[in-house]
Parts: sequence; C-alpha cells; structure tokens
Amino acid sequence: MHFNRPKKIVLAFSGGLDTSVILKWLQVTYDCEIVTFTADLGQGEEVEQARDKALALGVLPQNIFIEDLREEFVSSYAQQMFRANAAYEGYYLMGTPIARPLVAKRQIEIARAVGADAVAHGCTGKGNDQLRFELAYYALAPDIRVISPWREWELAGRAELLEFADTHGIAVARDKRGAAPYSSDANLLHVSCEGKSLEDPWATPEENAWSKVVSPEAAPDSPSWIEIDFEKGDPVALNGDRMTPATLLTKLNALGAQNGIGRLDIVDTRYVGLKCRGLFETPGGTIWQVAHRAIESITLDREEAHLKDELMPRYAALIYNGYWFSPEREMLQTLIDKSQERVTGRVRLRLYKGNVIVEGRKSSNSLYRQELVTFEGGGSYDQRDATGFIKINALRLRLLGEVRNPLL
Amino acid sequence: MHFNRPKKIVLAFSGGLDTSVILKWLQVTYDCEIVTFTADLGQGEEVEQARDKALALGVLPQNIFIEDLREEFVSSYAQQMFRANAAYEGYYLMGTPIARPLVAKRQIEIARAVGADAVAHGCTGKGNDQLRFELAYYALAPDIRVISPWREWELAGRAELLEFADTHGIAVARDKRGAAPYSSDANLLHVSCEGKSLEDPWATPEENAWSKVVSPEAAPDSPSWIEIDFEKGDPVALNGDRMTPATLLTKLNALGAQNGIGRLDIVDTRYVGLKCRGLFETPGGTIWQVAHRAIESITLDREEAHLKDELMPRYAALIYNGYWFSPEREMLQTLIDKSQERVTGRVRLRLYKGNVIVEGRKSSNSLYRQELVTFEGGGSYDQRDATGFIKINALRLRLLGEVRNPLL
Amino acid sequence: MHFNRPKKIVLAFSGGLDTSVILKWLQVTYDCEIVTFTADLGQGEEVEQARDKALALGVLPQNIFIEDLREEFVSSYAQQMFRANAAYEGYYLMGTPIARPLVAKRQIEIARAVGADAVAHGCTGKGNDQLRFELAYYALAPDIRVISPWREWELAGRAELLEFADTHGIAVARDKRGAAPYSSDANLLHVSCEGKSLEDPWATPEENAWSKVVSPEAAPDSPSWIEIDFEKGDPVALNGDRMTPATLLTKLNALGAQNGIGRLDIVDTRYVGLKCRGLFETPGGTIWQVAHRAIESITLDREEAHLKDELMPRYAALIYNGYWFSPEREMLQTLIDKSQERVTGRVRLRLYKGNVIVEGRKSSNSLYRQELVTFEGGGSYDQRDATGFIKINALRLRLLGEVRNPLL
Amino acid sequence: MHFNRPKKIVLAFSGGLDTSVILKWLQVTYDCEIVTFTADLGQGEEVEQARDKALALGVLPQNIFIEDLREEFVSSYAQQMFRANAAYEGYYLMGTPIARPLVAKRQIEIARAVGADAVAHGCTGKGNDQLRFELAYYALAPDIRVISPWREWELAGRAELLEFADTHGIAVARDKRGAAPYSSDANLLHVSCEGKSLEDPWATPEENAWSKVVSPEAAPDSPSWIEIDFEKGDPVALNGDRMTPATLLTKLNALGAQNGIGRLDIVDTRYVGLKCRGLFETPGGTIWQVAHRAIESITLDREEAHLKDELMPRYAALIYNGYWFSPEREMLQTLIDKSQERVTGRVRLRLYKGNVIVEGRKSSNSLYRQELVTFEGGGSYDQRDATGFIKINALRLRLLGEVRNPLL
Repeated sequence: MHFNRPKKIVLAFSGGLDTSVILKWLQVTYDCEIVTFTADLGQGEEVEQARDKALALGVLPQNIFIEDLREEFVSSYAQQMFRANAAYEGYYLMGTPIARPLVAKRQIEIARAVGADAVAHGCTGKGNDQLRFELAYYALAPDIRVISPWREWELAGRAELLEFADTHGIAVARDKRGAAPYSSDANLLHVSCEGKSLEDPWATPEENAWSKVVSPEAAPDSPSWIEIDFEKGDPVALNGDRMTPATLLTKLNALGAQNGIGRLDIVDTRYVGLKCRGLFETPGGTIWQVAHRAIESITLDREEAHLKDELMPRYAALIYNGYWFSPEREMLQTLIDKSQERVTGRVRLRLYKGNVIVEGRKSSNSLYRQELVTFEGGGSYDQRDATGFIKINALRLRLLGEVRNPLL
Repeated sequence: MHFNRPKKIVLAFSGGLDTSVILKWLQVTYDCEIVTFTADLGQGEEVEQARDKALALGVLPQNIFIEDLREEFVSSYAQQMFRANAAYEGYYLMGTPIARPLVAKRQIEIARAVGADAVAHGCTGKGNDQLRFELAYYALAPDIRVISPWREWELAGRAELLEFADTHGIAVARDKRGAAPYSSDANLLHVSCEGKSLEDPWATPEENAWSKVVSPEAAPDSPSWIEIDFEKGDPVALNGDRMTPATLLTKLNALGAQNGIGRLDIVDTRYVGLKCRGLFETPGGTIWQVAHRAIESITLDREEAHLKDELMPRYAALIYNGYWFSPEREMLQTLIDKSQERVTGRVRLRLYKGNVIVEGRKSSNSLYRQELVTFEGGGSYDQRDATGFIKINALRLRLLGEVRNPLL
Repeated sequence: MHFNRPKKIVLAFSGGLDTSVILKWLQVTYDCEIVTFTADLGQGEEVEQARDKALALGVLPQNIFIEDLREEFVSSYAQQMFRANAAYEGYYLMGTPIARPLVAKRQIEIARAVGADAVAHGCTGKGNDQLRFELAYYALAPDIRVISPWREWELAGRAELLEFADTHGIAVARDKRGAAPYSSDANLLHVSCEGKSLEDPWATPEENAWSKVVSPEAAPDSPSWIEIDFEKGDPVALNGDRMTPATLLTKLNALGAQNGIGRLDIVDTRYVGLKCRGLFETPGGTIWQVAHRAIESITLDREEAHLKDELMPRYAALIYNGYWFSPEREMLQTLIDKSQERVTGRVRLRLYKGNVIVEGRKSSNSLYRQELVTFEGGGSYDQRDATGFIKINALRLRLLGEVRNPLL
Repeated sequence: MHFNRPKKIVLAFSGGLDTSVILKWLQVTYDCEIVTFTADLGQGEEVEQARDKALALGVLPQNIFIEDLREEFVSSYAQQMFRANAAYEGYYLMGTPIARPLVAKRQIEIARAVGADAVAHGCTGKGNDQLRFELAYYALAPDIRVISPWREWELAGRAELLEFADTHGIAVARDKRGAAPYSSDANLLHVSCEGKSLEDPWATPEENAWSKVVSPEAAPDSPSWIEIDFEKGDPVALNGDRMTPATLLTKLNALGAQNGIGRLDIVDTRYVGLKCRGLFETPGGTIWQVAHRAIESITLDREEAHLKDELMPRYAALIYNGYWFSPEREMLQTLIDKSQERVTGRVRLRLYKGNVIVEGRKSSNSLYRQELVTFEGGGSYDQRDATGFIKINALRLRLLGEVRNPLL
C-alpha cells in the first residue's frame, strides 16, 4: 500500500451500498477529493439517484459524473465481441467482462480531465472484475494509482461493512439489512447472479435467483417469429426496422426475456484460479449470437469460419480475464473484423420457450449455390474431380499405412 | 478409372434402392464376385432384410456380411468424439461422420479376410461421405482399389437410376417411385436430412423433414429430470443404473426425442467446398454433450479445458472431413483423452421442450472450493495476493502504454 | 479436359526449354492465339531474351509481355511474408511460393486486358507450383480456363520432350542436351535446386548443386558488420542508407552470398503429399529474418510476439500450399500487420561464414527497461508483487494437486 | 509473510555466495533446522564442495543431500522437451527452465522424506526462476510453505549482501569481492549469462561473457562430420556408439563447443513482463535440435509435423514460465510423444564454425519415396489426379471470387 496520499480519486460509483461504503472509506482513509463516475449501461436502475447519494456523502457537485454509455457499450464493445461469437468456456456470453473496460476507460478519461491521480473500484479480491478494471486502468494510464478498497481495508465481511455504514451515517435500506443478497451485476447485455445457495453447484437454483428471463415453462405457449438484418457482421434492423445498436439490443432483450431465452447456469473458472457457480441471463445476446452464426453460415468461407472458431476461445479468455485493452486482443480483433466484411444479410428465427430456432437465412453475398449442391445433377461441379481430390489427399495416409500396420 | 478387372469387391450395402442399383452396376460393369457388408449402427431399420435383397441380386450366401456394430460404434467412436465436445462449425454433432470410419474399417477387415482387392460405397461425388469412406480405406489398406460408382457411371440423375433398376429387375417400392425423397442418413447418434425444399436455405423446413425428434411445441408440457454419471469422460449410468454405452445412448435418444431436444437446422461447408443446408436430429447426443461439459466444468482445470476448446474446431473438422484414421486425429485424441482422467461425477439435468438445463453437478474430483470462493470471508485465499497478480500482469501493458498513446 | 478450343491463352513464359516446348505444344494442340508473359523477379537472367524466343515461335509482338516486377515482388509479397517470420516446416523461407502468386496475378490482369479466356503455366503435376499458380488464377478469375500441359500432354519424360523440341524446330542448347539438369527456380529471394543425386536424401549434395551462396568454408576469414533499419516491420535502410525494397534485398543477397549465409538442405512435404529433398539458397532473406526477429525482440510485447509465433506455421503453410489469395491468409495478414506498427529501430549484425550474429538492437519504441531489469536494485518494480503473482498462478495447480497425487 | 516459524526448511543450495548467504539468513530469521539439497546437473563444478560449505554453516551432516541427477535430467526432462523442438521466442533452447522443475521435484521429495514443512530457493523476484521453482513446489505439494529470501529480506543489493556475509563469517572469495559478476546459470544443457554490460541491448557482448563455446572465428578451420541415431524421437547413439543420454549430450557439448556452435544473444520477455538481454550457450542442444528436425523431416507425416509446430510456441512458453508440472503441459506432451513413435533413423551432420549442416538422413520408417517424387516419370503417382485436387480446392475460392471483386 502507498503511504503517500493521493490528490484526487475517481471512483466507479453505482450508488449502491457497497460503493457508498467505499466512497466513505476513501474519504476517511485518504482524506482527499473524491470524484464519482456513474455509467448508465442499461442496468435498469435510475442512475440519477447516484447523484443524490454522492452529494449526501459530501461529493462536490462538479465532481459527480453521470453518463449514458448504452450506445457506446453496444457499438464499440458488444458488437466487436459478438462478431467473434465469443463464449467463455463454451457458453458464457460475457455480459460483465465486456462492460468493465468501457467504465474503466471513461474513469481514466475523467481522471485526466479533472487532474486526478488515482482511480478506485468496488470489486473484491477474489473475482475477475478487479482485473477487468485494473488492467484497463494500467493499459490506458500506466502511471495511474489504483485503489482497491476490498483488498486494502480491514472490513472482513458483510457484518462489518454494515457496521461501517452505520458508523458513518450511510443509510442502509431495510431489505438490505437482513440476509446477504445474491451478488449481481446488470447491464444491457445481461444480469449475473452468484453467491448464497448457488455456492453449492449441485443445488438447483431457486427461481428468485433469476431476475430477467422467465423460465421456459412460464413462457408463452406459442412461438414468435422475428427477422434480423446484419451488415458487416453487426445487427442493424429488426423485422425490417433499422434502429440504433442499443435500441435493437433492448428489443431483443424483451423478446428473449419473455420467451424464456438466455438463462445459463454454469461453473466457470476465474483468472485467479477459483471455480465459481453463476447464473447468467443474456436474452438478447443469446438471440444475437445464434442469428450471427446463421448469417455467417452462408456468407463466410469455410476457412474464414474455421480460423475464427479456432481463435475464439483465446479471444474470449482475453476478454474474460480483463485484457480488452491489450495488443493481442486488438490483433485478434483485426482478424475477426476482416472476416466480417461480407457478413450481410437476413436471418429468420422462431423463438419458443427457451429455443432460438433458425428457420431461414439469405444474403446477396451468399456463398451457397443450390445449382451446385443439388442432388439433381447438372451444375458445373464435375464429380470426377473428387476422385483426384481424394486420391491426392489420401496419398500421405497411404504412405503412412505402408510404414506402420494400421489394422493392428 | 482402372481397366483391369477387380477380383472381388466388398460393397457397403444398406439394402436400399441406391446400393441395390450399385450392386447390380458393379456386377454388370466388373463381372466379378461381390461381397456385401451391412452394419447395424442403430439406424432403426431391420438389417436382416439386406440379406434377402443381396441374395435376390445373386450374391452368394457366404458373401453376405451383416453385423451389429452398435456397441463398438458408441464405445470406440462416439465416446472418443464426445470427450472433445466436438461440434463442427459451432453446432453439428457429426452423427454421420463418426459412423463412416467404422463401416470402412470393417469393410477393409472383411476384404482382407475374404481376399477381396476392391471396396465400393454408395456416396455421391459432391458430398463428404465419399471422403470419410475412401480416406479410411486408403489409410487402412494403402493398396486397396476403391470403386465409387456415383463418380464413375453414366447415370445422370434419379430418373436414369430408376430406369437402370427396372432394366435389371430391381424392385422399387411404390413410394419411392414418385418424387425424390429427402436424402437421409440414420444411426444410433442421429438422423440427417437434406435435399428437396431444404435446398432453399431461406425456407422453413416442412415438419415431415424431421423424423426422430418431436418439435418443442409438441413435446410434453412438463419437464423430466435425469441424472447421468460419468467416468473418465464417458457416460456410464442413467439415473443411477449402469448400462452399456449403446444402451445408454438409446435411452438418451428416447428422452431427447420425446422432449423436443436435438433438432438442428444449419448450412455447413463441405470439404469439397460446397455449402449445404441440412437438418440433423441428435437427441441423445445433445443431452450427452451438455452433460459432459457440465461435469468437465467442475473436474477440469481451467487450462485443460481451454486447451481442449481451442483444439476442438480442428479436431471436429478432421472427423467431418474424413480423417478419423489419421495421425493428427490420433495425436489430438491422446491429448483429449489425457484430460479426461479425472472427469468423473454426476450431472442432474432438466429436459423440457428442446431445452437441456443443467441443474447440478458434483464429483469427488471436483476442483470447486466453496470455502475459497464464498463472499463470506474466511478461507485460505489471501485477497492481497491479487494485488501482486494484477500488478505483474499489468506490467507489460504499462510499458506498452508508455510507448504508444493508448487513449488516442 | 475441355474439348472446346480456347480463344486466347496467356502463358507464363520463362524463355527456357520447358516453356518453349509448352508454347509450341499449346499452338499445336489448341491452334489459338498465345500471349506470353515473362516477369523479371530478379532471377538473374536477361528477361529480354524471352522476346526473341517468343517471336521465333511465332508469337505476335503485341502478344509478348515482359515486365520488371522486382519492386512489387519485395514490397507487396516478400515484406508481408517476412513480417510473419514465416518458415515452412521450421526452416524454408519460401522464395518460390511467395513469387508465384504475383506472376499469376499479372497473368490474370493481362488475360483480362487482352481478352484471353485461358492461362497456362509450365509446372509439373507432382509439385506445389501448379497449386500456387492455379489457386491464384481461380481466386482472381473464377471463370478462367486453366491449361496445365504437364498434366495433359503425352510426353512421358525428358527424352520425349527433347524429341518434341527437335520435331518442332525448337533450338536446344548443347549443354542442355546431355544429362538432365537439376530442377531449379530463381528469383530475387532465392534459388532452389532439386532432382538428380539430391533425390537420395542420405547423399551429401555435390558442391555444384549450390549456385548462389559460397560454402561457409569458402567464405572470407573475417567477419563483416552491417546495420539494418526497420520501419513498421520492414527493412528500409542498410548501414544508414535508405533504399528501395528490391535494392536493399539485392545488397543483402550479395552480403549473404559472399559470407556463406543462407544455404539450406531439407526434406519438405508438398501439399500433394510427397516428400521432396531440396536445396534452397536465401542469402538476403536469411539475414532479413534474423534481423527482423531481433528488432521485434525489443519492440513487440510478449503476447504480440507469441500470438504471431503460434499462427506462423499455419500462415507459412498457406503460402507454401498456394493460398496467397485466400481470405484466411488475408485474415492472418491483418493480424500480423497490426503487430508491426511499432516494429521500428536498428539492428547490428556480424556476418561470418554462414553465421548471422545479432550484436545489438535499439529502438525508440523499445519495451526493454534497463532500470527495471537490472540486478542492481532500484527501479519501480516491487519484487514483493511477484509473491502474489506466483501464489495466484499456483492456486489452480494446488487445487489440482489436492485431487490427484502429483508425486506418484 | 508468515509469522509462524517453519519447523524445517529444504533449501536448494549451490554452495555459492548467494545461497550461502541465504542459508545463513534462513537460520537467523527462522531459527529452524535447514536441509540443503545440491544437485549435479552437469554444471561443471564440484558439487561435493557444497558439503563442506553447508557443514561450515552449521548444517547437520544428515541434513545435507547431494545427488547426481544428470541422467534423469536428460532422460526425463530434456528429451521430452527436444521431442517438441521447443524454442522460446524463436531461438532459446531453455537450458535453465527445463532444469528447475527437476530440482524442485527432488526438493519436495526430500522435504516429504525428512518431514520438512518449507522449501526455499535463491532466485530473485524479478526473474523467471522463482516461478519455475515455486509453481513446481505448489503443484507437487499444495500444502508446502515456500520461502523466497530475495523477495523477503531487506538486503537491497550486492553491497549489503557482502556485508551480511562478512557479519556472519561467510567467506567471500577475493575474486567475488570486486565488481559484480555476470549472473549465470549452468547445467549439462547450457550456460546463461546476464547482467553488467549486457544490460545495454545495443552493446556487443564482451568475449569473456561467453564461457562454454568458442567463437566461430576461433573454431577449427576444418569441419567435423558426425552421425546421430534416433529412436522414437530421442538420440541414442553417436557415430554408431550407443551411450546413455547424459553421456551422449556431454559428447555433443564437446563437439559443439569446439566448433563454435550454440551461442545465442537475445532479448527475451519474462513471465513477469520484463524484457531481458541474455547470452545462452547450448552447444550440444543446438546440434540435437537440428538433427532431430532432420530425422523428423523424413519420418513424420506432414500433418503430424505441422500440428507439433503450431503447438510448440505454447509448449515452450509453458516450460519457460514454470508450468512443467501442469496438466496442460502434460496434455501437450502426450500429443508430442504420440508423434515420435516412428521417429527413428540416422542423421549425418557437418559441424563447422558455428554451422550445423545436415548432409543426410535415412530411416527404415522413411515416408520419402524417390520413385514417386522423381522428375523422371514412372511411379504410381498419377499427375492427372492433381487436376481434381486443385479444382476441388479452388472451388471455394472461385465462389468467393464471384462475390467479391478480387482484382480490385
């Protein structure tokens, strides 16, 4: 820990209990000016309430920054990630990991603008989010001082945190007084839920652990059909209506949530080495990825698609681990983006009780050729070419078969 | 084409129209002894009927081989593949590609046993199956002669094929007289469907194109719960009952099929370069893969899991393209198998209208540690270690940030 | 083979015996207008002599294209490849594979300009060059007709080729009358040599099989020192003098050749599956790659460098196999090029009897920090951070160690 | 830092100044029983002198362990690594990284045997070796306590270390009194050298920084020829004489060292993020790797070889970073070992002034087929098969060419 006092700290401030305690703790511990930054990423809460809370804790009005980052979140972060069909450890669509770098970047920009020499966040020392914030801070501002209260203070759990709040006059809502809530993170892309009874990976989640997507059982008994248009790899229209990226994702979220789409219950492995069981609800993102793969299936060449797929797990792990602002992520991104130049077209989907069913896909860039593939003869494909193709491809296997006895 | 006559040909013979015509064509063209081989891979048809058909076409009784390969299919092919969580182009569980090498291997073994110098199959020159048969033939018998009637004969389509059948007295069932059927392949793992109206990738499949799995809409309104036990990566018991691999898969198929699980509608890219739209129904396999990933999620170390995931697309493409009997597939298999040594435990699933929902997973090898990951303090994990972890990981990003201007 | 006659064929024409025979064979076989294209790629022969030979064989003056492509070869092909440190199967710097696509591209451009409907080349059916030409042709002109005489004609060997030459009045130099020469290809980047006594991979090459680089034993007894400047990954100056890419490579070739640098004797595996033993002399390229890696060693971040290195074998195989004009090569190229933005600086080398010895490297973008790495204390690196770094990285290994018995 | 005292510590003890100071510091700081372990890894110093030094510092005779690990080092560590052709960041043959895990493993085994609860090493907090020791410790003994004096004590540099030595009566040789020496590590595989004037990566190394291999200029003016026999990927005989792995490597070292082979001057990037310039001398290892690649070139199938090459950088980084005892290294090792089953045969090399020149390679498992590859017709390879091979491979490029305009 540094013993010299920072001059000014920019805190990522949600307005909730934890970051309120952190705000106070920073004031008490470092006795310096605090700047709060609250981002609207579509978490579905009123971000303006953070202003009152910050003021109540003595933050100067000019030191309170509240911004709506929803469009930037989708157009500069989520779209890049979805072009890769990124899924961490097979399934996780990474709603949280893709949001943290944007918040960190704005924190650094604000720190530069207001002359702050330190930044702080409210993540614990066991999780991935500390990495997503801090690796971004350091990449964008190598000289910045990073304060991570959860790793520095002496508060050893929830009880002590509530006591600190009481001692310093931080109001704690009655419903937050009782048993600890699930740990949750929400934004336009997803809601996550961890902790409590979920900590037993054999236990079925209680229904109230899910907050955004209805269960498949509770979804409508009739399917819905939608069409999504893509341009250069990104969705641009829903049922023929062009709309902004955040608007489109908001609508996909509504469709997914009501149709029971996008619930995920997994044990994943954090960068710090711990396995954790979490629930993730990504209704719009789930639809998005299925649709994107469908339009890619007719517009991407096989080798383009396979190369992307092989590099995807690594790309996903970079985002998951906090390396959004890293040269290796950027290298992979250029490769992925290059592949998306012709990923333009329309996909038709049926949504039904947790299922996202592709029914059709079409594109003016389609590489599908009915006249070649048809079983009904014709076309310029000469089947006899396949003989040479096979024999040449088999040559090395035949040589190998002569050297070893393949049937033993 | 060879102009010298083979002595004896072993034909992969289903007993259907196409391979009956091929059998006759081989007799007519090469005027040599034909051996038929019919494998029961769980396709759900009576394989013994192939005997009568072969006899009717003049094949000698001792030249008719009919074998039940279901257990070998699951234990020596499907299990290997599922350890890798293989999915071609994101989704396809490869029921056909994993079956062909087994048939080809038995054909070669029979050819060696009966002194045949040639093998033949009924695949067209546009597809992948010709590769899966022939690459296996050549790998296992470098000197074998391969006859591929569809690439050699002059029959230019369905009408000429029917005419050839009539000319040579091959009975054609009335229902096969009319419009061409879908092209289909079935075994214990899946049923595929291609052709006809599916050749328009924008068109919704007709319901009758699906033959094995009910639609999610038609599935029961109540979920089913099951538990699957894994040992060293392979499923060994269902709801606590140990059973043979093929029996277990048969039961998973029934569960999946009735719950609307495992329908897939994709456009994939063949090794010969053509894109093709196909429907694939893999009810048991879909459950199997989800369950396998779930048990891996608590028993595999992060780097084990990620390494497998990164190599999976390549492994899948090898199987899809016909390289089962290749040294590179075997190298990857040893790596994958090595990872499965501790993949032992139980998974609980909810099956409901197309959804396979993981509800719990447990293992005596579990790497999950509730006492470390809990939000409620305690445990031997020292959060302050994370500071060093982050600062060292950030060092290279900070150096890079000094050289380039990261906020520009 | 097509039975309809092409209207006009553009032939890649070196002016040597083989392509002269091919030119005549095309005239005789197809009875159509032939356009010859001869490129100066720095092969060290007078390309203008090709004009006389073409004229003598009846090609119309306006149908003879001779172009100096040396600068384009280095700046648009070799530089791209060297940014990747490409080496096929560990060693081969691919002087031939990187040149063929450029010739093919110009052939297609000329075909379009003169209204030709076919192109032809002089490669045999056993090698890789046929692929490098033809895959490029088809990628750039999907409708083009490709004529590959070596795979089409009935000439079964060298004797018949000479007889065909005599029959059609093609002059054969006396020294080409006797025993077959080595098969060789030369350009500004390298000279290759195959065939004859080299076909025994156990035999030491005869000294006369090497044509460009002196043996290390015959090189000067004193070293030479040089400095190369790189900008964004490409060499731009030698010993402080800026020069064009082709000029710089020409000078590096001279330096390498006289110092015994760049001889390579390998058995490599062709795309068609055959192994082939070849000698390759790449004097300037060998120096280039060592120098490039040296400047990368101080300007590339670790993860940039490792990602490139992991993808390099695949990138190299694409070029070797003829996929220069493919979307997957272009995807990889964007990734590689992205990494080169800061690869700028100077390298000092000692050249001595086959050795390219890096003695120094410096860059204004250097990521090397003496003040951090020094053994003599000081610097902002806090060694105690390493404790946390190690303990967190070890966590997963410790969990694993608890589950399995690692000392058994 | 732990404040509870360990009972017994096993120290990796070289007998040199640094580990002598560490031994004393451990005694002073922890006041507990110390066990010393000194391994003979072929560093070329008398390991028995470590006994006297330990005794002089008060270590009990039964607590002094000295072992000759040379054969185990080569047969269970170096051979595994060389099967992969491992080279970190293009060149580094990792003599140090491959030795540390063996020492760590023996330390843990001794700790278990003597009932020690802690282990210690003499590596600084800036380097990679701390990781190689400690990750191995934790993997093999998850509960072990690790003491890393350089990261714990208050000695801030060489002067304070010498003062500590004087204070505690540790004899410091006169020649170690003056200017700090280079930092060096030696074993049977290599000698490394870092620090001092080498810390300027632009400076040419002083000749006295090299200690094992003569300069190419100083090497004999005549070449030497040798033959190496491999079995299943490992060298087993030199010039026809079978010998143990360590003996063979010792002889290759002598041959390489006298012929100026195996000097390397690089800037590499440590796992902790720092770049460091080092000299590495690996005479025998350099010959070994060239010879191994040569025998692989005729015995490995193309896809075997390429798959290994693609995974090599990752495998090398694992060893470099200290993950020898990790499941991912073991997974990769099984894959690599699988490929070596047929890597058996003989290689003939010419050694001359820094050059390792392959002159011949032969094997009873050779996949090279002169009768197929020869330019002189004949053989069973049908050139016309290449037409189909090319046309099918080109199909996807042609479809792509129709969609985009490839010549623009």
